[in-house]
Amino acid sequence: MKVFQHETRLRTAGGLTVTDITEDVQRAVRDSAIGDGIACIYSPHTTCCVRVNEFESGFLQDFTNLLRRLVPAEGQYYAHDDWDLRTENICPEDMEVGNGHAHCMSMLLGSAGESIPVRDGELCLGTWQRVLFLELDRERERRWIVQVVGN
Amino acid sequence: MKVFQHETRLRTAGGLTVTDITEDVQRAVRDSAIGDGIACIYSPHTTCCVRVNEFESGFLQDFTNLLRRLVPAEGQYYAHDDWDLRTENICPEDMEVGNGHAHCMSMLLGSAGESIPVRDGELCLGTWQRVLFLELDRERERRWIVQVVGN
Amino acid sequence: MKVFQHETRLRTAGGLTVTDITEDVQRAVRDSAIGDGIACIYSPHTTCCVRVNEFESGFLQDFTNLLRRLVPAEGQYYAHDDWDLRTENICPEDMEVGNGHAHCMSMLLGSAGESIPVRDGELCLGTWQRVLFLELDRERERRWIVQVVGN
Repeated sequence: MKVFQHETRLRTAGGLTVTDITEDVQRAVRDSAIGDGIACIYSPHTTCCVRVNEFESGFLQDFTNLLRRLVPAEGQYYAHDDWDLRTENICPEDMEVGNGHAHCMSMLLGSAGESIPVRDGELCLGTWQRVLFLELDRERERRWIVQVVGN
Repeated sequence: MKVFQHETRLRTAGGLTVTDITEDVQRAVRDSAIGDGIACIYSPHTTCCVRVNEFESGFLQDFTNLLRRLVPAEGQYYAHDDWDLRTENICPEDMEVGNGHAHCMSMLLGSAGESIPVRDGELCLGTWQRVLFLELDRERERRWIVQVVGN
Repeated sequence: MKVFQHETRLRTAGGLTVTDITEDVQRAVRDSAIGDGIACIYSPHTTCCVRVNEFESGFLQDFTNLLRRLVPAEGQYYAHDDWDLRTENICPEDMEVGNGHAHCMSMLLGSAGESIPVRDGELCLGTWQRVLFLELDRERERRWIVQVVGN
């Protein structure tokens, strides 16, 4: 059995930007030389995540609108951004523009990563499926990991 | 180490139907002859997903109501369904009844699949846990994949 | 290849309590003696789940407020809790205080577990990432499973 890991860095734009990382993930799977197994694509961050869906600009705009409606950044109190109360995990860069909403969004969107079957050296993606990296916070340095386990 | 893959086709009814695929997944795990490992049950579609929860008709009705309340299909604009603007990934069958809401639902519900531990050749499901295939779009031909990795 | 499983029991408090299980998961990964692979941390329950995010009290309060706003326990009808109609999967303890909202929350939050890459015997968690066990129901006996697959 083989285990292969690849890590990629990217700088995101803020404001709920979505990056299509499918080609990079596919290249990593090919580099792994693993024929059959599982690929876990993972975001090691708490205010962004990896999701599989269609990369179509209309849908991404719709989804942005939905997220902002369910988890508004403006006009909503977040204890995570209340610097009069907050004592844990202080990160100075977060003090200018809070990111309580971004934590709530990422938790609501579910797991940090996606696991995708690999067959004959290829991700078993459906016709419209793309691997997407979602930035829920401000412009930031980010990275994602693909871990492939198989034969 | 062994890697086993099984794919199943199904035709869903539309309207947020949920299919209990637990028995089929369990059969695939037994067919794999893998004793201990991980089973990844994966939907290769962008408007449906695999989830683990209880298969109880009242709950499924409650969940349908919740999804429709959070992500309404009617009375809500979706750029994904705006054929005056849309230029990417055109799929003629989607032009009659839009599915922007179904994409938003599936992204909100999280990852495309579920990973479940396998022990002694059985899925480690809890008492009430069932593997569910959720159709979020119209009646369609679908498939799901189970990938088992282990010894 | 090795497959390692560890199961932990806990008694939760009710009311959307979150338990930080990171240290226990890390200990299990070390006990597995697996250097590189994937760890699947799984909740075998239908009204709680495992998520990765920050363990900061303000955020957890914000997220609780969000969940209660999106999926209210009070003042909302749940067919799952309608004992005049319900015929399936009857669990006497659920009849005092319904848990239809907790099922809806767990389905909305996504998959039952999280899969995290393991490298050099350590979980590939980011700076602020912690493994969290979310109780969405009343005070209950619970358990979570970590399954590690790798070399």
